[in-house]
Parts: sequence; structure tokens; C-alpha cells
Amino acid sequence: MAIILSAPLLMRLDRSMSSLTIPPPAALLRPLEVPNRYLFGPGPSNVPPRVLAAGGRPIIGHLHPEMYEIMNDIKKGIQYIFQTENNMTISMSGSGHAAMECAVFNTVEPGESVLVAVNGIWGERVAEIAERMGANVHRMVKTPGQLFSNTEIEQAMAKHKPVLFFLTHGESSAGLCHPMDGIGDICQKHNCLFLVDTVASMGAAPIFMDSQKIDILYTGSQKALNSPPGTAPISFNERACDKMFNRKTKPVSYLLDMTHLSNYWGCDGQTVRAYHHTGPVSGFFSLRESLAILAEKDLRLPSVTTIAIPKGYNWRELLVYMMKNHNMEMTGGLGPSIGMVMRIGLMGYNCKKSNADMALHALADALKNCKKSKV
Amino acid sequence: MAIILSAPLLMRLDRSMSSLTIPPPAALLRPLEVPNRYLFGPGPSNVPPRVLAAGGRPIIGHLHPEMYEIMNDIKKGIQYIFQTENNMTISMSGSGHAAMECAVFNTVEPGESVLVAVNGIWGERVAEIAERMGANVHRMVKTPGQLFSNTEIEQAMAKHKPVLFFLTHGESSAGLCHPMDGIGDICQKHNCLFLVDTVASMGAAPIFMDSQKIDILYTGSQKALNSPPGTAPISFNERACDKMFNRKTKPVSYLLDMTHLSNYWGCDGQTVRAYHHTGPVSGFFSLRESLAILAEKDLRLPSVTTIAIPKGYNWRELLVYMMKNHNMEMTGGLGPSIGMVMRIGLMGYNCKKSNADMALHALADALKNCKKSKV
Repeated sequence: MAIILSAPLLMRLDRSMSSLTIPPPAALLRPLEVPNRYLFGPGPSNVPPRVLAAGGRPIIGHLHPEMYEIMNDIKKGIQYIFQTENNMTISMSGSGHAAMECAVFNTVEPGESVLVAVNGIWGERVAEIAERMGANVHRMVKTPGQLFSNTEIEQAMAKHKPVLFFLTHGESSAGLCHPMDGIGDICQKHNCLFLVDTVASMGAAPIFMDSQKIDILYTGSQKALNSPPGTAPISFNERACDKMFNRKTKPVSYLLDMTHLSNYWGCDGQTVRAYHHTGPVSGFFSLRESLAILAEKDLRLPSVTTIAIPKGYNWRELLVYMMKNHNMEMTGGLGPSIGMVMRIGLMGYNCKKSNADMALHALADALKNCKKSKV
Repeated sequence: MAIILSAPLLMRLDRSMSSLTIPPPAALLRPLEVPNRYLFGPGPSNVPPRVLAAGGRPIIGHLHPEMYEIMNDIKKGIQYIFQTENNMTISMSGSGHAAMECAVFNTVEPGESVLVAVNGIWGERVAEIAERMGANVHRMVKTPGQLFSNTEIEQAMAKHKPVLFFLTHGESSAGLCHPMDGIGDICQKHNCLFLVDTVASMGAAPIFMDSQKIDILYTGSQKALNSPPGTAPISFNERACDKMFNRKTKPVSYLLDMTHLSNYWGCDGQTVRAYHHTGPVSGFFSLRESLAILAEKDLRLPSVTTIAIPKGYNWRELLVYMMKNHNMEMTGGLGPSIGMVMRIGLMGYNCKKSNADMALHALADALKNCKKSKV
């Protein structure tokens, strides 16, 4: 048996322990402390015990056949919640922002025109992402929470001739659920891809990727899907695949390159899945389980409620009061809606009448006990 | 009480269930099945029950003060295992590849010169990442597992005048643990940043970021650190910060921009941490716990052993035999070392004499029962 052990990795500690100039930190010798919280903000939301248990199971290798089966289940679950037959349907190994960058990086080349509807924070983020990779970005801007008419969208499209149009379905910074009907047809007419962000709305407000002719759709795991943050479903239709797999330049990120990710998820017709990166095995266990819950329930639930801040109150004071006295998270506005609204999220596992009652009770208590200014 | 509920997000299902053209997938109505596996490959490795339990705890918000405390603990733990006092020490919300891209995207601008030592797969990956973002990449290439002398490195540095030099500490595709001493001095002399990949070696082979004058160091969570994949510690020293925070252009990725990530991790001196992306809360719980185990043990362990494939054997057949009959993962080579070696990883939780005995027994059994060709 000619087994040769390579020498270098059998090396022992060749410096004495005295060369450890940084001592073990005392903070890590305390046990991990995590308080119980009602997560009634716009996400993450509380994770059901069943999903937590899935994430806490012993892991297997990211390239084991059983892992591929679990990934196949996830793919089918995403097709279901997105209402799509798209083969090119995967989960990102990252948050919704990774999906956002993946969508832009893969479908746009430097110098191409991108049209972004900005009526809250998410449009602004996509515009910045597209600018950084060298796209020619055109913003349609409205005050937070206002909607864009199909006529306005078509006019801007005719003017700027974009290859990609971005719209947020659930604008969680402002509480708007944007209508989707008819926009896909306008995009097809103008030879433009339609990219929709449903991070805050998927599983809570109805959306139908195929029948609404959405070319690229993504969401996050940690809102109505009820998984821990760290994975993000995304799907591309044939039109999007045609564009992204017939590029002249490589996408700027190797990590987010759909040529590799589609292979990792078994979407590219190859029989062998090559190593690209190490997927979050535990995160995929959780995501699979949260999709299973949706498949079993076969229904969808509402998510983030925005509340105008009552006149004369300091919203920060109200939030601190509820966290301190009710152990409950709600949040303020986000980006352009800061100071305008407070936001309550009751998503998935948290979506129960008793929780809504508890949230209203906490809010009433805060309004009673927090000082009102003389305004 | 002037509370106004925003109408759009209180919308109900405005289409009947009959518009759900994609039915719930039958695969998701089966329970999640995860086999128990001995993960004796180059990673991920088995996760200790204590770390799994931490990852399975109910989550809190990614911006709660208690979460910041946990992140502060993680920062201290990384400083300890990296042996560094660097303030700019964080975990990526992603795998080792996210750290790799983060390091390159933030410290290099388009057109700048980058020198990469390629003696296995990881150098090639960094070269590709740097090329995609527009750097002028120079490769020093050796056959897998060979080392670069300090003289060779200095000569290449004098010739190409790079702003960044990349070297892999634990070349897991070839089984090489590269010496580090003296290279940091050469980099300082040539005004070049020294970037080191320790994904496969951190916690297993000794490394000392500060005393070895390494400017940027990163690793992954899923090898000797014993967490599930999905988080990746990274640290930048003052020299690296000077370069990356005095750029002319913005890094190409918003998600990986250290201006934002340093704020999220409380490293930028600001009192308020703004929302950037949603970190993997459960992944951070696990990472904190795996760092705590290292802090308690105060020692480090060896990781990936490469074994030359015995003549006449089909390595794939050996691996399949051990998986089928011993429920045990080992792997083949990676990238340029495919067909040359098999790789056994006994890391952290798996690093026990009984496991080494079991691995050797399985290997002997495979050699006995797999057909040898007539070579």
C-alpha cells in the first residue's frame, strides 16, 4: 500500500504558546445569551420551532447527493411560491442584497441602460448597484409610497431604452404594495427585462411570476418565509436567460455569476455539478422546511403594516418603550420614510390574531405612557 | 389616536386560488431527510452539538443591541484566532468566497497591478476575481503543492509593482501549508498589501497575523472552526484600511463595500450602526459558539491530509466504496490536483484519534475490496 502522507500539513505547532500575543477573550468564556423577542418589525420575523430544528440538524456535505435532493426540493418550493415554471430557479447563498446584486450583475453589461423606479429605499439601492458596475442608470423618482402608472413607466422606457427595469413589489420602507399587472407586457414590447423585488412581500401579498410576465424575481428568507436570514430565492425566465448567457463581458462577480450558480443548482443541463462555493447547508435545511410549511398551507398572508406617527409623539421613544416593557420589536421608517411612519410586521409564524392584539395593546400602552410634546 | 393603516398592504388575495397554476410540490410534503455522515473531507466538517444548538436558537433582530454584543464577541474571537489587534475585524455574511471578493474589491481599483501566487485552485480563483473587476493581474504559477521562495516573490514584486500580493496559507487542493515568515517585510518594502487565504488552515495550522505582518487575512466558518458554512471571518490592518478607505472609485459591489460593513460591525467609530443588509443571525450565533470553543481550548489542530492515490486504483471507486460501506466522506483532488490525490480532513470536532483510526480502517477496507487495474 503506497500511501504517502504529505509532510507540510502534518507540521506541529512550531512556535511555543508564548508567541500567542493575543489572549483568549474573556467575553467568549461567558455562555451565549439570546433574549426571547417578539419580532414584529419588517423582518427578520420569528422562526417557527420546526424551521429552527431543521437548521439545527447535523450537516452533510454541500456536494452530497442528498444535499442536491434538498436543493431540488427548494427549487420546486420556490417555483410554487413564485408561481413559475422557470427552470432557472435557485436560492442565493446570501441575503436579499446578494440576490439584488446577482440580478443586476448577470443581466446588465457596462454601458447598458437601466431604468429604476425609486419610491422608497430599495429602488435607490438597485440604482447604486447598477451604477457601480458601470450601467447607465435612469431613475424615476416619487415620494415614498407613491405608485408609478403604466403610462409613466412606458414613457420612461421609450425615452431611455433600458435593458432592465426595476420595480419593488413590497416597498417595506413606505408600506406600499405596487400593482404588477400590464408592466410585463410593456417591458416585452420595449425589449426590456422586468426585475421585481419581493423581499418584503413574498408569501404575504399575491404575485404570479409567469402570468404577470416578470422576467426576474427574487425574495429573502427572513420575512414571510420565516427562515433565518442568509438565503434568498431568485428565478430567471427564458428571456432573462437569453440575455444573461449571451454576454460579451463576464459579470463582475465570480461568486454571483449565474453560469456557475446555475450549474451548482443543477439548472444548466450538465450531469456533473462542479464545486463553485460552499453553500450554507444549515440555511438550506431551514429554507426547505419553511417552503414546506407554505406548500402544506397552500395560502399566503399579509406582512408589513405602516402606521403614520401620531402627532406630538417621538417615535423613537415609543419603540424603546415597547421593547423595554413588552419585549417587542417594531421599527421606524427606513430611508426616505424615516420619521414618517412606524412599521409592524406580523409574518408567517407571527401572523396570528393574538399577536395582532398584543401588538395593538403594546402600542396603546406606549401612547398612554410616553410623553407627548405640546405640538 | 390618529393611527392610519396604509391600505395597500392590507389588501387581501384579489385573485381566486384557481389562479395558482403551479400546485404545491409533492416533494415538500415529505419530511426533510438528512443522513448522518462522517465528514472527513476538506470541509465542511461535522458541527459539534453545542454549535448546532446555538444555530438552532430562536433568532433576534439583526440590529438589536444584544446582536451587536454577539457580533462584538465574534470580533474578539476572530482577533484571537488570527492573533491580531486589528480594529477592522468582522465576519462576512457569506462563504470564504465572499471574503475573497471583499478583500480584492475593497483594496484594488481598476487598472492597478495585482500579483497572485498560483499553486493550486485558490490562487487561480483570486486571479479571476481581480481580472473581472478590471485589475492588471500577474500570476506566479507552480505545479500544485509547490512553494514560492521569498526571493522569487520579491523578484516578481519588483517587476510588477503590485498593490496587492495574494498567497494561500492552506492550499487544500494540494495539501500544502505555505510558510509565511519574511513575506510581510518584503511586501512593506515594496509598498504592497499582503493578502492571505486561511480558509482550510485557520485553527489547524499556526498563523500570526500581526507578527507575520499580514495586511489582510480571511477564513471560512466550516472547516476547523466547526460552524456550518455561511460566515467568513476577515481582518484588515491599518495599512489595508489606508488603502481601501482612500480610493478614487467605489468598490464594484455595494454588498461587499467595507465602508458599509465596517459600520455594521461597529468598526468605524460611529455611534450609530445603519442598516446595510440583513446578517445571518443564526450563522452568527453558531460562529460565536465555535470561536468560544477555540477560546476555551486555547490550542489549534491540524486539518487536511493529502494522500497520493495508490497506483492502479480508480480513486472515484475508492471514494464511492467508503461512502456506501462506511457512510464516510473523503474527497478527491481539487482543480489542478484532481486525479493526483485523495483528501482526508479531520477538523475540530472530528479531530480525534478514534476518527483517524476509523478513516484508516475504511481506507484499508476500500483498498482491499476495490478492483485494482493491471497497471
